[in-house]
Amino acid sequence: MPDLDTVTRVGLLYDFYGPLLTVKQRQLISMYYHQDLSLGEIAGEMGTSRQAVYDTLKRTCKALEGYEAKLGLLQKFKEQREKVEQVRAALLNMAEKCHREEIIKVCQMIDNIID
Amino acid sequence: MPDLDTVTRVGLLYDFYGPLLTVKQRQLISMYYHQDLSLGEIAGEMGTSRQAVYDTLKRTCKALEGYEAKLGLLQKFKEQREKVEQVRAALLNMAEKCHREEIIKVCQMIDNIID
Repeated sequence: MPDLDTVTRVGLLYDFYGPLLTVKQRQLISMYYHQDLSLGEIAGEMGTSRQAVYDTLKRTCKALEGYEAKLGLLQKFKEQREKVEQVRAALLNMAEKCHREEIIKVCQMIDNIID
Repeated sequence: MPDLDTVTRVGLLYDFYGPLLTVKQRQLISMYYHQDLSLGEIAGEMGTSRQAVYDTLKRTCKALEGYEAKLGLLQKFKEQREKVEQVRAALLNMAEKCHREEIIKVCQMIDNIID
């Protein structure tokens, strides 16, 4: 059973780099991290050994971390989200003074940036 | 001699996916698209044939387009830049009415998002 931090990180890396994985790698990540199946259950379903599932999962996570080491999309996303939060905070601070409706509209537009 | 649109596109794709290429592929892209050397000049410098340089360049461009087809980072970047431009325009429109200094500050923060 992987810990929650790992599940979150692998899930995020998968969101960014999933299309670069093979179909089999994507299936395994989905079964283990999203559907929360055990290694044994996955092995049964795929007609392979628990050890083979474990090895492939480990290699897949390593591949995801390798892409992150090269492209850093998750890191950039986090930094960008932080910057957008600062913009939102600054705008909301302005909203206390004037142009409330317009500023809320701008905030919604900024929210769209990171959707 | 590649046309300017191709140079721009390959340059942008290289900015996003360059780290996923091999050292040799990066060298070739740099020599052909950035330093503007001819296929013959590159072949001379690398001690290989003009045809081999051409084939490797073609494969490398195909690899870059393959990553873009899977991850779409260039497309997302363009869409995001367009959204940010809309936010900037909206804020500048507000600036005509009040809080000029504050709004300019927010615009600079938003500029930072896409740096």
